[in-house]
Amino acid sequence: MKKKILLSVNAGSSSVKVSVYYVEFGQAPVQIAEAQISGLTSPPPTLKYVRDGKTVIKAKEVDDGMEGQRDAFSLLLETLINDEDLPQIKSKEDVGIVCHRIVHGGDYSKPQLISSETYQHLEALNDLAPLHNANSLEIVQLCIRALPTANNVACFDSQFHSTIPEHIRTYPINRDIARSNKLRKYGFHGISYAFITRSVGEFLGKKPEELNIIALHLGSGASACAIKGGKSWDTSMGLTPLAGLPGATRSGSVDPSLVFHYASDVGKLSPASTKDLHISRAEEILNKESGWKALTGTTDFGKITSAAFSPNDPDHDVMKLAFDLFVDRICGFVGSYYVSLRGKVDALVFAGGIGEKSPQLRAAVVDQISCLGFEIDEEANGDNQIKNVVEEVGKKGGLDKPRVLVVQTDEQFEMARACAEEAEFW
Amino acid sequence: MKKKILLSVNAGSSSVKVSVYYVEFGQAPVQIAEAQISGLTSPPPTLKYVRDGKTVIKAKEVDDGMEGQRDAFSLLLETLINDEDLPQIKSKEDVGIVCHRIVHGGDYSKPQLISSETYQHLEALNDLAPLHNANSLEIVQLCIRALPTANNVACFDSQFHSTIPEHIRTYPINRDIARSNKLRKYGFHGISYAFITRSVGEFLGKKPEELNIIALHLGSGASACAIKGGKSWDTSMGLTPLAGLPGATRSGSVDPSLVFHYASDVGKLSPASTKDLHISRAEEILNKESGWKALTGTTDFGKITSAAFSPNDPDHDVMKLAFDLFVDRICGFVGSYYVSLRGKVDALVFAGGIGEKSPQLRAAVVDQISCLGFEIDEEANGDNQIKNVVEEVGKKGGLDKPRVLVVQTDEQFEMARACAEEAEFW
Repeated sequence: MKKKILLSVNAGSSSVKVSVYYVEFGQAPVQIAEAQISGLTSPPPTLKYVRDGKTVIKAKEVDDGMEGQRDAFSLLLETLINDEDLPQIKSKEDVGIVCHRIVHGGDYSKPQLISSETYQHLEALNDLAPLHNANSLEIVQLCIRALPTANNVACFDSQFHSTIPEHIRTYPINRDIARSNKLRKYGFHGISYAFITRSVGEFLGKKPEELNIIALHLGSGASACAIKGGKSWDTSMGLTPLAGLPGATRSGSVDPSLVFHYASDVGKLSPASTKDLHISRAEEILNKESGWKALTGTTDFGKITSAAFSPNDPDHDVMKLAFDLFVDRICGFVGSYYVSLRGKVDALVFAGGIGEKSPQLRAAVVDQISCLGFEIDEEANGDNQIKNVVEEVGKKGGLDKPRVLVVQTDEQFEMARACAEEAEFW
Repeated sequence: MKKKILLSVNAGSSSVKVSVYYVEFGQAPVQIAEAQISGLTSPPPTLKYVRDGKTVIKAKEVDDGMEGQRDAFSLLLETLINDEDLPQIKSKEDVGIVCHRIVHGGDYSKPQLISSETYQHLEALNDLAPLHNANSLEIVQLCIRALPTANNVACFDSQFHSTIPEHIRTYPINRDIARSNKLRKYGFHGISYAFITRSVGEFLGKKPEELNIIALHLGSGASACAIKGGKSWDTSMGLTPLAGLPGATRSGSVDPSLVFHYASDVGKLSPASTKDLHISRAEEILNKESGWKALTGTTDFGKITSAAFSPNDPDHDVMKLAFDLFVDRICGFVGSYYVSLRGKVDALVFAGGIGEKSPQLRAAVVDQISCLGFEIDEEANGDNQIKNVVEEVGKKGGLDKPRVLVVQTDEQFEMARACAEEAEFW
């Protein structure tokens, strides 16, 4: 099979990122460019464009009537095609594969080739996660039409977790309704956890089937994952990304009856609902109006950390509360997963924006779980610049001592890699 | 102060129990009788009556138009007064103190003397826990009227948890709404945890302030509690008893958005609501129509265990699923609390109907947490008859080895004890 140009598309709630790879079947993808539009929910949106590792556009405002993720993707595609110094993409026909990160994949345990005929399979998943899948699906639709010669592939954030055993993924609710409404733990951030598992295995010189880790993907959405023999054994998110750890605007796990004491009529549809997508006020409150934004007024965990460690900051008390609360909830999952893995844990892994960038959070978490044998290396941890894909921030000890690692996770690369290995997509 | 007769009243969802004590101020109460009506939700209800440790009535059907907990209490009171062999209670005037177990106590951190004037303070708590407080309040009302010479005392299941630190009890939601609607973790089963803390302290020869334990109250309602220095540090139930572990008909913690995918209109009022008590369909589904009843068809955990351990039982698979699920969720909390207590744990304690009566569950839990140093003693654990208030079922080891204990918790005694020590109630 010949070489192809692959676009790896990652649409978040306020940004769209496209990484461009040169791929050969069965080989590791080679990145040649990366373009991103961010700030979609706090206009003006800005464009960033990097080619061959060099920044071409740093932060250009692009607010000319842009509406949502689909418009952002169109502009990114245009930017790539119009760049004369990117000869690999001269026209739309040069794009061979487009892989899309889709949050909720239902029962899918691997990436799926999507055509206009099979697109409705993706739409059916929207019932489970309207808040999370809709943005990506807009871009899939656009690509099916606008890039007719490319193969579109859906990569799911839930697919890595298809190995979670039944007694862990089952909710203790009516079995018939659970079956017909597809109610179970699915788990998310799986593309990131697949990247982490592979990278940490290589770093430790262990085969996946020998590798047990507790991984923390901590960003504006945050989750924890117990990985046993290289496979997902448990994770903190559930039927939807709402369960588990709190995030920037997400409550995480709360008493399931809480929202009924929060406001009246939380069962009613949110004004943000559309004809096809039904979102209750409750889901909107817990997903969009909670988290540390609701506690502290900011979604910026760096600000929270900084104030939490500055006793004279006017917001010190509430920022410290948010910081301590997050550490408490994270450590709860680490303790729980340590037991679930029967104490056989090769490493605790920090990833995601906060995991990578907050030595204070890493230190606080590892301090609180020191009774399990984890120990931070203050010097390695304090060095703010994480340079390698995997960096060690824990103290080294005997063979039995669990490691503490930071991984610069790369979801676009992981999707590209998965596509490069699957003949069906070529 | 003279000696008094004290009634300790414990109204559950389908039963009412009254324990009668002879109390001297500041002394341990001495039980002289105990009467119980059970089966209120699966008629005919039956009366059991024990005097001086001897069974007087074993199981008498009493189905003559009895409606709910208030009628049941009236009959129990009548039974006590009419018993010629119980000379301590010849008339209503002989009752000096009645203490009532109330599930949700809001911000109360200790028992409260209740009069017709202060009764509305209890009613205000009903908004937070209509499903749980209403039965007890009916009996309080009756006692205020029917026993005018007695002091009525409300003992709250939440009061033991008033020491949970702010970063643990806070939900990451809008702070103003949390404050005005009183939304935080409260925790329950606290009367039982107070009994456990005192009994285990005496058993281990430790002062409360030196005692760290992880306690599991496992009955048709189930919870876990981290007790640090004799005080509640964290617990699995939350704003209401719904959060945390699953129970006979309760889901425990599930994705907070799950119920909106379970049925339409879950925000609407349940037909079981009254003018004063508002219960959403969602709360009814998650509290009354879930748990292992929903998974397996039975609320009897003994049946579930028996079938789970009988490979040829026709229901083996689903019963094993329910058993394994419960063990998994319990061990998750034990791991989490082990970390939260920084690994300084004197003992793991099993209590409640299932905790006392299921050696299989105890063995399965302790096996799964063996990496934390806990170890079952098969012989001590296998002996089905727990005879003492505190029994050791773990293997003994060095001073550092955490113990595994079973406690026959006694909520009525604990309430009576608390009343005997408080001058205000005399």
